[in-house]
Amino acid sequence: MDTVERSAGQSQRERILQVAARLFAERGYHAIGISELGDAVQLGRGALYHHIKSKEDLLYDISKEYIADLADFGERVARGEPDPAQRVRMLGKQLVLKIASHQAELTVCFREIQSLTEPRRSEVLALHGKYEKVWRDAMVDGADLGLFRPYDPIVLKGVLGMYFYSYLWMKPDGRLTPASIAERLNEMALRMLDIQGPVA
Amino acid sequence: MDTVERSAGQSQRERILQVAARLFAERGYHAIGISELGDAVQLGRGALYHHIKSKEDLLYDISKEYIADLADFGERVARGEPDPAQRVRMLGKQLVLKIASHQAELTVCFREIQSLTEPRRSEVLALHGKYEKVWRDAMVDGADLGLFRPYDPIVLKGVLGMYFYSYLWMKPDGRLTPASIAERLNEMALRMLDIQGPVA
Repeated sequence: MDTVERSAGQSQRERILQVAARLFAERGYHAIGISELGDAVQLGRGALYHHIKSKEDLLYDISKEYIADLADFGERVARGEPDPAQRVRMLGKQLVLKIASHQAELTVCFREIQSLTEPRRSEVLALHGKYEKVWRDAMVDGADLGLFRPYDPIVLKGVLGMYFYSYLWMKPDGRLTPASIAERLNEMALRMLDIQGPVA
Repeated sequence: MDTVERSAGQSQRERILQVAARLFAERGYHAIGISELGDAVQLGRGALYHHIKSKEDLLYDISKEYIADLADFGERVARGEPDPAQRVRMLGKQLVLKIASHQAELTVCFREIQSLTEPRRSEVLALHGKYEKVWRDAMVDGADLGLFRPYDPIVLKGVLGMYFYSYLWMKPDGRLTPASIAERLNEMALRMLDIQGPVA
């Protein structure tokens, strides 16, 4: 019975997080009040505060979960895949699929870091740094093996910007599947990293 | 005297816009109240409302001005420069220099569209569309001339994402000048558009 109750509580919390992410993504974290969130999840203030400690708790959980997942996956990829180009493809695909499947959450994760107060802001920024390092390592390894151009932090930022920005334009019901979008972005990332420059 | 007063009024308004952009960029549009803005510009509520109609007016002006400038410049470049690769370089340089010189304003412009109410939101989105079309035309022209790969909207989004995202990582006092960052991003954009794919 205790397990069942806890499980029901968890799924209620998941539901609140999902609705909060959608509202924060659509209108911005600070634009959404607790009472509006309560209306959206059909819970009164008391019931809502049974599941969450504060509105910032929700922002923190949303901001942390996805970037932590991406960083963990990235570190597993780095350990398991020695080919840097293949690693870039795996990282790119995971990133695009995650943005596609959790677009509201990733929108909040990428756009609302400044809305977190310290020390949570620094903690989430450190997770972003951990994730960036996975990409950086792939680029450095590729350069060391003579497969990629010499490592350049601007190339790292450019590649990540190309992927990250898709939270703004990817359409869940678009003509292209997320896997096909990932393939095209991966191909562009490998162009950006190629040992040869453009001929044009 | 009238001219002097009007000029003083304009520069006061410019100052308010600048401070508002900085506050909105640092903490988010909805996080900043009118009284906090008044404190920051050292104007009381009445004096502040002498210069602005509402907080959203400021957001609207900030969101509109820079993307309208970029679109206007882009259309002039399109008329004056027939070489698509050179056009990409000019558009990229203008974009990076604008982000570098008005980082707070462009942060607000890129991040707070959802905070505008209709019909202003649609109006600003249309300006973003007009700007995007300048890039699209350069890519289509380059493809037609056999200089770039066939036009692909995902490539357009990828290239723009690479540039736009620099509002998040460019450092005004960084080691690299904005012009040098622009050159590197331009080189990557031309790689993404190159008629040949990566060898890796």
